[in-house]
Amino acid sequence: MKVAIFFGSASDRDVMSPAAEVLREFGVEFRARVVSAHRAPALLAEEVALAEAAGAEVIIAGAGLAAHLPGVIASLTALPVIGVPLEGKPAGLGGMDALFSIVQMPRQIPVAAVGINNAANAAYLAVEILALSDNHLKEKLRFFRARLGADAQENREVTL
Amino acid sequence: MKVAIFFGSASDRDVMSPAAEVLREFGVEFRARVVSAHRAPALLAEEVALAEAAGAEVIIAGAGLAAHLPGVIASLTALPVIGVPLEGKPAGLGGMDALFSIVQMPRQIPVAAVGINNAANAAYLAVEILALSDNHLKEKLRFFRARLGADAQENREVTL
Amino acid sequence: MKVAIFFGSASDRDVMSPAAEVLREFGVEFRARVVSAHRAPALLAEEVALAEAAGAEVIIAGAGLAAHLPGVIASLTALPVIGVPLEGKPAGLGGMDALFSIVQMPRQIPVAAVGINNAANAAYLAVEILALSDNHLKEKLRFFRARLGADAQENREVTL
Amino acid sequence: MKVAIFFGSASDRDVMSPAAEVLREFGVEFRARVVSAHRAPALLAEEVALAEAAGAEVIIAGAGLAAHLPGVIASLTALPVIGVPLEGKPAGLGGMDALFSIVQMPRQIPVAAVGINNAANAAYLAVEILALSDNHLKEKLRFFRARLGADAQENREVTL
Amino acid sequence: MKVAIFFGSASDRDVMSPAAEVLREFGVEFRARVVSAHRAPALLAEEVALAEAAGAEVIIAGAGLAAHLPGVIASLTALPVIGVPLEGKPAGLGGMDALFSIVQMPRQIPVAAVGINNAANAAYLAVEILALSDNHLKEKLRFFRARLGADAQENREVTL
Amino acid sequence: MKVAIFFGSASDRDVMSPAAEVLREFGVEFRARVVSAHRAPALLAEEVALAEAAGAEVIIAGAGLAAHLPGVIASLTALPVIGVPLEGKPAGLGGMDALFSIVQMPRQIPVAAVGINNAANAAYLAVEILALSDNHLKEKLRFFRARLGADAQENREVTL
Amino acid sequence: MKVAIFFGSASDRDVMSPAAEVLREFGVEFRARVVSAHRAPALLAEEVALAEAAGAEVIIAGAGLAAHLPGVIASLTALPVIGVPLEGKPAGLGGMDALFSIVQMPRQIPVAAVGINNAANAAYLAVEILALSDNHLKEKLRFFRARLGADAQENREVTL
Amino acid sequence: MKVAIFFGSASDRDVMSPAAEVLREFGVEFRARVVSAHRAPALLAEEVALAEAAGAEVIIAGAGLAAHLPGVIASLTALPVIGVPLEGKPAGLGGMDALFSIVQMPRQIPVAAVGINNAANAAYLAVEILALSDNHLKEKLRFFRARLGADAQENREVTL
Repeated sequence: MKVAIFFGSASDRDVMSPAAEVLREFGVEFRARVVSAHRAPALLAEEVALAEAAGAEVIIAGAGLAAHLPGVIASLTALPVIGVPLEGKPAGLGGMDALFSIVQMPRQIPVAAVGINNAANAAYLAVEILALSDNHLKEKLRFFRARLGADAQENREVTL
Repeated sequence: MKVAIFFGSASDRDVMSPAAEVLREFGVEFRARVVSAHRAPALLAEEVALAEAAGAEVIIAGAGLAAHLPGVIASLTALPVIGVPLEGKPAGLGGMDALFSIVQMPRQIPVAAVGINNAANAAYLAVEILALSDNHLKEKLRFFRARLGADAQENREVTL
Repeated sequence: MKVAIFFGSASDRDVMSPAAEVLREFGVEFRARVVSAHRAPALLAEEVALAEAAGAEVIIAGAGLAAHLPGVIASLTALPVIGVPLEGKPAGLGGMDALFSIVQMPRQIPVAAVGINNAANAAYLAVEILALSDNHLKEKLRFFRARLGADAQENREVTL
Repeated sequence: MKVAIFFGSASDRDVMSPAAEVLREFGVEFRARVVSAHRAPALLAEEVALAEAAGAEVIIAGAGLAAHLPGVIASLTALPVIGVPLEGKPAGLGGMDALFSIVQMPRQIPVAAVGINNAANAAYLAVEILALSDNHLKEKLRFFRARLGADAQENREVTL
Repeated sequence: MKVAIFFGSASDRDVMSPAAEVLREFGVEFRARVVSAHRAPALLAEEVALAEAAGAEVIIAGAGLAAHLPGVIASLTALPVIGVPLEGKPAGLGGMDALFSIVQMPRQIPVAAVGINNAANAAYLAVEILALSDNHLKEKLRFFRARLGADAQENREVTL
Repeated sequence: MKVAIFFGSASDRDVMSPAAEVLREFGVEFRARVVSAHRAPALLAEEVALAEAAGAEVIIAGAGLAAHLPGVIASLTALPVIGVPLEGKPAGLGGMDALFSIVQMPRQIPVAAVGINNAANAAYLAVEILALSDNHLKEKLRFFRARLGADAQENREVTL
Repeated sequence: MKVAIFFGSASDRDVMSPAAEVLREFGVEFRARVVSAHRAPALLAEEVALAEAAGAEVIIAGAGLAAHLPGVIASLTALPVIGVPLEGKPAGLGGMDALFSIVQMPRQIPVAAVGINNAANAAYLAVEILALSDNHLKEKLRFFRARLGADAQENREVTL
Repeated sequence: MKVAIFFGSASDRDVMSPAAEVLREFGVEFRARVVSAHRAPALLAEEVALAEAAGAEVIIAGAGLAAHLPGVIASLTALPVIGVPLEGKPAGLGGMDALFSIVQMPRQIPVAAVGINNAANAAYLAVEILALSDNHLKEKLRFFRARLGADAQENREVTL
């Protein structure tokens, strides 16, 4: 298992699932856990330790509102933590609250923030990180990027 | 000791000290600790437990940027936690980042947010809470409020 | 009666009702009143006094737009006042207007703000405050928190 | 006395004084009072009544942070109330908090908001209102506007 | 005719019509015109002059996006101008763009801003202004306010 | 071909098509291309060069989220580039993110920003620019503006 | 004279002067006028007509707060109008108010917005527009862009 | 060389230098280049290729205003790119513009955003990534984190 995905509430499942799709597409093993930083802090510490023990090299954490989950995980591990700000329900200020809560981490304990609701990009970033020490994955990534360019080449024409 | 004050960095000392002044004015015992939620999560858990053991009934926590401290403390205790959003340095979006990070807590684990940099009000709120079961304090609070009204009465005239 | 709930318009009933559900769940007696700070200031003063006389120890006030209700109540009583910012209709800037109007109270007259539309958290906070002098409630709260942890334990696995 | 000026704290004196200058320039009598809506609600009600009794036809109220003063005054009188949002200190979000707190009044109880820290414009607006039933003032206003145009005419050239 | 209502596009008709309802309720004569400040500046100047000639004492102007209409009208007349910020379509930033464009007028040329989409309050404010020199209207306003208080009295009870 | 229209994703087609309608209305030849600045940077450079070679004098580029497309095109050509900020999906902060990403260009490499989702105005601006050296187009523009005024004249009356 | 520069207040002179420097650098003749859209609307119309008569092909307009100047000019001419949002004083919300007031123009009457306080870029954009029909200027612009690249080449090394 | 640091203007040197300090502290080799994405796009592509050839595994890019640099680099390489939003001068909206421009990248081309002006955290994140395949660095990181905890332990007491 290379990537551990965390999010705080089962209701975030749909917005986080693109991360899983991307990881599958690249053949990267992952495991997902629903653990709230606030409702179950001890369990979160345990699950982060379990993820490390199971070989996780990158952690993806999605959270909305006062989105503490990525930062709390970052305080518990020295693995790179990627935070996905989620549009909160109810009343989430368009995800701006979650973005600020994730990205404005204090000096020394970083979180890597990606775009609001953009769980896919968290996975692409994880793939880029893992590819640094995995030549097979690096090759897939290179191929993927080349294919993006080729697809763009083919689909550039449009009538308005 | 009735109130435990936490903040994450010694550089927040000045903006948090009005809380101490207010508590002293009301004769409420307190203790302050500098503990970062992110740099020292285990220590924070320990200090929160120590505060509870020492009799704390209300916790005041000040934090800037991705201000997780009040929320993380709230996940560790069922005491009321009052969060003071601080204007971050460097580059803190006027404290709006800290405010969102403190106030938008998920259902079930509340934090009581007061105004940006308004540590004094966190202390007044703590006094109001403690006064519910302390008639002497309730009396002081009533007197304080009456004095506010009287002062206003005396100082209402102004020339422009 | 331990908690008085106020809101300014009958149309806020649905977004405020989770507060009632939580209080019922904890067996805390409460009373609700619809009184606008602006349309009926004298009635509001009267109702706040009635609430105090009826034994209220905590006041929960929900308001949208230029959400003055919690602050005006705080000016009329020294009980702790918890403010719930509501997403306004029509055109409420996602509740940011109400949040600023509630949380940025001047020195000396605090309001405890919770998250936007998060009436449930206002009630949980009220329970935390009341539990300070009510051992039975404290026990319920401890049990509730433990159950949150246990539920999290059971539901942590998820497939993406 | 035609205009009553209110603000909540003596520290707002300098930012409110342009209102006085403009009213003097137009020969409009006014009276200023420092009364906080939150620290002295009864006094505020009394002073608003005194202002009405003294002949005030327009009320100007300046406030920062959770700027309730104009709205609370509007709840106490049917005179037109002009609100001046002030940049708060400490930590006032550039006056955006005060602006939202003043302008987003609920249906039926309006406040007329002018620009942030723009007390002068509150006075110009008061003059426009008073001029409706005061031909002498109307003439002054017309002259003032004409002079603005003439000044502009003279000063339009500039070298960059 | 006492009040002239302007807005820039026929599509704003529905959000502006509450102003008309309120004016009718108070028996205040008004006239409405659809004139864009940008598409027809000469026509706007003409219509503002016609409104003045027809006896208008207050102007209400609603606009969205870069909401220049109220400010442009204010540059053309010394009558009090009340601006209603409208939520723009398409893509209007919740009306925050219109609010800033209306309220942040430069010194000397004020606009009285009311809440976003709150055309009703523009009319209530116009009534308050007109009532200053119209005792019959003042009486109606007093009665209206009293009725608000009485309605509040009757409807304060609610079950949650 | 006088105007090249670029956007980064086929899903932006509908919001960009008003630009095409306006250009057709004025008889201005244009060509549209879907090229992402991020997925296909080399292709973008090629297409910008092709557009210049094909005679493009103005470039219109629409983009959402971190809307780099207009700025990247501006770095590749000295033709005037008009940027249209688009409301992003998913989770685009109402287009404020795209607006800031387009308008805040560094010194020396300007982009001309128009309103959020306002592709029509990008085309009107392009027409204004092209009309500077095309008397026939200048005439059409003058006629169009006159017609706007005449339409306004006819449609100014409205009942509320 | 090819470019007319307008701004509303002599106090904006310093922030607008970089536009003049850039135009001088490219040998583009320009003329500057200080005319407020609100204090002197008739004068503004006159000056815009004079600018057109004097040969202006592009108009640059800088304004702060409720920055109507560029939009009002755009309503008076079919020349391309470039708007420079200025940080207002006092209390200008960092120029966000001016940006929204300039960029969110209604359909059919565009303004080309550049960055906050970025008068230089307004001038670069004007140069790009004028270069479309001026080969000498086009050559200068090409040279300028090439020099930017060469300077960057030379100065890319830095020690941290 | 393991980390390539890019920023767009020599004036950003001071705010970016903490990244260098952190990398030196961990003994990670790096190289810095000043290259603007907009003024020298070809040079940027060249420098990114050179950085890859020189062994860079992580790229740190700092940028203000419409901060395209990190995203443009991400379009040119499949290495992980960490973006540092910088408070712009002049007039940078507190860095919110740069933050949105960096973090809201489109699907498939991620950038890892850290806090505003927080170049140090970009370096800590780079260290975390590099440590995944460098046991010596992993050890240093573990030691560093332990020392943070120990320092916190020692400095937790404070008097207010």
